[in-house]
Amino acid sequence: MAEVQQHIAWIAVDWGTSNLRIWAMGADDQVLAEAASDAGMGTLERGAFEAALLDLVDPYLRDTQVMPVVCCGMVGSRQGWAEAPYLSVPCKVPTGAEATRVASTDARIDVHILPGIKQVKRPDVMRGEETQIAGFLKYNPGFDGILCMPGTHTKWVHISAEEVVSFQTCMTGEIFALLSGKSVLRHTVAGDGFDPVAFGEAVGDAMSRPQTLASDLFALRAGALVADLGQPAARARLSGLLIGAELAATRAYWLGQSVVILGDDKLARLYHDGLAAQGVAATIADVCEITLAGLCAAHAAIKETAQ
Amino acid sequence: MAEVQQHIAWIAVDWGTSNLRIWAMGADDQVLAEAASDAGMGTLERGAFEAALLDLVDPYLRDTQVMPVVCCGMVGSRQGWAEAPYLSVPCKVPTGAEATRVASTDARIDVHILPGIKQVKRPDVMRGEETQIAGFLKYNPGFDGILCMPGTHTKWVHISAEEVVSFQTCMTGEIFALLSGKSVLRHTVAGDGFDPVAFGEAVGDAMSRPQTLASDLFALRAGALVADLGQPAARARLSGLLIGAELAATRAYWLGQSVVILGDDKLARLYHDGLAAQGVAATIADVCEITLAGLCAAHAAIKETAQ
Repeated sequence: MAEVQQHIAWIAVDWGTSNLRIWAMGADDQVLAEAASDAGMGTLERGAFEAALLDLVDPYLRDTQVMPVVCCGMVGSRQGWAEAPYLSVPCKVPTGAEATRVASTDARIDVHILPGIKQVKRPDVMRGEETQIAGFLKYNPGFDGILCMPGTHTKWVHISAEEVVSFQTCMTGEIFALLSGKSVLRHTVAGDGFDPVAFGEAVGDAMSRPQTLASDLFALRAGALVADLGQPAARARLSGLLIGAELAATRAYWLGQSVVILGDDKLARLYHDGLAAQGVAATIADVCEITLAGLCAAHAAIKETAQ
Repeated sequence: MAEVQQHIAWIAVDWGTSNLRIWAMGADDQVLAEAASDAGMGTLERGAFEAALLDLVDPYLRDTQVMPVVCCGMVGSRQGWAEAPYLSVPCKVPTGAEATRVASTDARIDVHILPGIKQVKRPDVMRGEETQIAGFLKYNPGFDGILCMPGTHTKWVHISAEEVVSFQTCMTGEIFALLSGKSVLRHTVAGDGFDPVAFGEAVGDAMSRPQTLASDLFALRAGALVADLGQPAARARLSGLLIGAELAATRAYWLGQSVVILGDDKLARLYHDGLAAQGVAATIADVCEITLAGLCAAHAAIKETAQ
């Protein structure tokens, strides 16, 4: 540990609602150590953030050096450690220059929180995704098109001329989790089975008849009771109806556009297949450590400003 | 009690997923006593139904008489006391003649469970509502039109020539409860405030642009963060978006039809106002004890069959 500690130049922090993740970084942005905890923003009282951070980073601090700490995510929200005011679209992704510096009790750390991005007309917000976008743009400078970022709250982001032009968020992942876990549909869609044909049909149904979504949902349970709809088909159909409704809502984002889906998991594949059925050939980009790449870009800017 | 007991001729039972409610009835269908418990179908193992019933009705039984017990609701589902097979649309509302007789260990009771109604093409099911419909038709013989039955799972029922022609269920109430209680929107829509103007606008938005629902939802949270959307307006708008989506899905039911809304609470009023904005003048009918009225009709038929 002592040897690693000597080479640590700064700390990168991805601090979301549910989780806290840190990387101890070398001067050339190599990862020397990493750690994580469940001390997400949503679990912490206002005064508890510094202690939660120190729980993870203390082993990497030295009494003789002030360690730069660069954070992104919900830690910068109004309920977080300190509010890092949003940038407003159209704007470049935030660099370290717009970070909010947070006073700490412990003199060994110098904490910077990156801002999120807001959109006032057609209200929307992001915190954390802007750093992923920065990471993506680091690897894909000059990208012009649409980023689709699937997750609990999927973001669709229009990027042009190195700016975030506009974006749109859909709660599709969260609604799927609530309906499949806590609603009357939970038995109907139980299990891990997934029927890809039923998924594709449901995407098409939701896109061609978005107005029937409200009754299509209970029809899943009824279909299981009176028409032998099996769990794998019902689960896939629920997913397809919700992703189809999202594609209907975001048509202006993907129609005739170059779309990159950030993510390499099953969810990214579902968006890919849903778009393919609409004739859109989206690219899936591996998001491994993309947040860290964005934090590295921000740290470089902070270092430059300080010099 | 002894005097009341002498006059009890039968027991009416409304047995849903969450609650069990019984009425001790006189020979002329007057209510002599009533009781309720939270021993709903969802809380009981298969073998526990008779004991849960006896917990409430034992005081009203006599050793010298077999007491007819007429039940409706989820007690007749596959997970209930005994499965009472569905009638299938188009059909008259079930009378006692189609009830399933259930064997009981206690010889003092003779239990009948009323069937629900199913719809195979465009799958749908009801259990309990068919008895409310029977109660409504008892007071409104010859009714021809649409019944809207708001609740956790709102039912739209087309009734003509004394038959249930078709029906459609929307999970709007349950989805509102999940989104307002358990999703990222819960703080945005907290409190009891309700802005009727925001409700009306949202109903209109959802009906004219059902395809944007998926992104309209997260916009509530973003609106609170970046555009001063207050909790009463956000709560009303969430309700309006979901009821508007339901009205979009059920247009074939209410367009140009005579609509009666069963319910006298705030929820019925919201459906009324939403329909009014579409030029439909719906009538709100008081549903007080309408299930009991349906159970009385069923008991009369059972009595007749037995004679």
